[in-house]
This record gives sequence, structure tokens and C-alpha cells, in this order.
Amino acid sequence: MPHDKTDCILSTQSVKRLPLYLPILAEMRDAGDAYVSSAVIAERLSFDPIMVRKDLAGCGVTGLPRKGFPLEELYQAVEKTLGCHVTCEAVMVGVGKLGAALLGFPGFSQYGIKIVAAFDIQPAQVPHVGIPVYPMRRLEEILAKTKPKIGILTIPADVAQPIADRLIAAGVKGIWNFTSTHLAIPEGVIVKRENLATSLIVLSHRLRVAKLI
Amino acid sequence: MPHDKTDCILSTQSVKRLPLYLPILAEMRDAGDAYVSSAVIAERLSFDPIMVRKDLAGCGVTGLPRKGFPLEELYQAVEKTLGCHVTCEAVMVGVGKLGAALLGFPGFSQYGIKIVAAFDIQPAQVPHVGIPVYPMRRLEEILAKTKPKIGILTIPADVAQPIADRLIAAGVKGIWNFTSTHLAIPEGVIVKRENLATSLIVLSHRLRVAKLI
Repeated sequence: MPHDKTDCILSTQSVKRLPLYLPILAEMRDAGDAYVSSAVIAERLSFDPIMVRKDLAGCGVTGLPRKGFPLEELYQAVEKTLGCHVTCEAVMVGVGKLGAALLGFPGFSQYGIKIVAAFDIQPAQVPHVGIPVYPMRRLEEILAKTKPKIGILTIPADVAQPIADRLIAAGVKGIWNFTSTHLAIPEGVIVKRENLATSLIVLSHRLRVAKLI
Repeated sequence: MPHDKTDCILSTQSVKRLPLYLPILAEMRDAGDAYVSSAVIAERLSFDPIMVRKDLAGCGVTGLPRKGFPLEELYQAVEKTLGCHVTCEAVMVGVGKLGAALLGFPGFSQYGIKIVAAFDIQPAQVPHVGIPVYPMRRLEEILAKTKPKIGILTIPADVAQPIADRLIAAGVKGIWNFTSTHLAIPEGVIVKRENLATSLIVLSHRLRVAKLI
């Protein structure tokens, strides 16, 4: 069931933290607790309590003084905010090592994201990944049937733009771009770049700033 | 050669954007340009010019009015800030699909990060990945020799904590954690969590907020 408060504007950092709260809330609920304070969650994750309170308040649940947040209501609000109950279909283009590794992650379906099909230039050489893998030439045909909203690009950088163009022309609204190509996209489409080397640079930069290396 | 300005404090978001500027700067340098303005770079990446100027100024280079930044100096300052010239050694624990995909990325060495060894419970079953893959029991021995500063955890969540403990005891200062486990770590160690499902959630959340899905 859609929920009005799904639309609240949370920062990207908040949205990234919300999945971390769910297992803690589930554990406390299973232990019979009715309320939970942001301080308790913050301590479990070594987070700033004020940040946790803001994240949770951003899901639209109001805490009670000295009691905290009603646990069950909070759990459901976090799930709704993350869109766990609304399935969002996605397709993957390029099932190499990285693509295959992504398809093996259990996390996506947990948060309502369903990868319905994949495409590859050599579909016959792709090992079994649990979803159908089609040749590139069938992209438009399959997208017309499955109507996915998200396209995952795990392909070489030099073909990223033309493939993105084909996905967008077929109705894809969000692109998760694992290539190093800066995509030119029309208004009404959102790109999320993913550069894993960059993450490692961020870590090494933090280590150098902290004089740990 | 170490550079004092490497120590300047840049935000994580700035550090993530810096690698995107390098190819543009290189291209302009090769075209014979001596100066570059933040506005030009911003336009190429569809970024806010003020944000780009702050990112570049954070690397310690001063721009000239109406001319912009001296190109060669800027290029070198960005590289230094990212630590491209200082090799940072890393080891990987767990060479499954994701680990193998990461080892295949060309990006790490470009930014000065060298993965020197990997460990797996079944090293004989790991396909050729270009670096030596050792059994888990040899972890302490190999780390005593290679002295890596970063450990990459691409292992099942339930063994993440004990493996992190072993890495830290062996002198690792930074952990790139691909598991869903929230690691308990001592002071003086930095963890960078990587949850790929979370990235996809961020994208689907943005799409819903923008009413695109």
C-alpha cells in the first residue's frame, strides 16, 4: 500500500543509513520491545544520536518524550521510505564478472528492487545467473514487455552512451552507471554513478588525512 | 615526492569528484591549453561551477582572475591530493565473483592503490586473477611480509568480524567492507562500508521523490 510519507525528502546520506536500522529494529521487535530510542540505535552502530533521530524523523514517525519511537510503526515507516513494498523493476546490460556478482546479491529484492532481465553481447557464454540473459538486439523488444524503470550499466565505457540512449528511448528513468563514462542524458532521467575505484580512493585519502598511513 | 598540500581537508564528496576532473584536464593540456577555468570543467560535467572551483581550490592551487587555474600545476595537484604518486598497498580477503570483478578493475593502480595479495578459503578454485591467492591460514605470514595498509573484505557477512580482527592485528589501518556486518573496530582504524544494494536504493528513492516512477 503506498504511503504519503514515502515522498518526504531525505538526504542521500540518510537513505544510505536507513537499511542499517532495519535489522536492529527487527531484533528489538522480536525481543518484545514496543518502543525504541534513537540513542539505543545510535550506540549499536557507533553513530551520532542526533543524526539517527533526524533520519528516523525523516521517515515521518513521531517519537514520544522518554519513550522513543513506537517500534512497529517505525519499522514499517523505514521500509516504506526505502520503497521495500513497491517493486521497482530493473534490467542489467553487460553480464561480465561485475554484472554476475551484482546479480548474486540478495540485497536488492529485500529492498523491493527486482532485476527482471539482462542483456549481453554473448548471452550463450554467460553462466546461469537466475534471470534470462538476452542478446543486445532484443533490448527494445524485451523492454517493451517488461517496462523496467532502472537500467544497470555494467559494460565497457566506450559503449555506455549508445546503450544508455537505447534504454532511455525504451522508457528507463534511472541509470545505475558502473562505467567511467560521463553520460549525457535528457531531463527526467536520473543517473547514479558508481565508481568503485573512487570508494577506495576515499578510504586511502581518509587514512592519509588521519595520518594512519 | 610527498606534497604538503596533500593533507588539506577535502570533503568526501570532493574527493569522489576529483577523479572526474583528471581526464578533462589531461585532454586540455594535450590540446596546448595553459589555463583552465572551473566554469569550463563544470560545463563538461554538468556540475555547479562554484562546487568545482571549491574542489579545485581544495587541492591547494590558486586561480588567477580572468585566466583560471594554471593547468599543469592543477593537474599535478589533483593527482597529489588523490595520492596517485604514493602507492598504497592493499590485500583482498575472499575472491568470489565480486572479489574477482574488483581485481579486474584497471582504476585502482591509476590512483596509486596496489592490491598485492588475496586470500580465500579455496585458493585452488579461484581463477587466475593476476595476483597471488593464498589460503586463509597464511594471512598473518603474508601480511607480515607485504605490510598492506588496506584490507578489502569480500567475504560472507558471518566471518567479517573475525577476519577484520586478524587484519587489524596484522597492521591494517583501513578496511573496505563489502559485507553487511557492522564491524567493531579499535581507534586508529577506518572502515569504509560499501553496500551496493544501498546505491540502488538511493537511485530508486531519487526516482520516487522526483515522481519519475
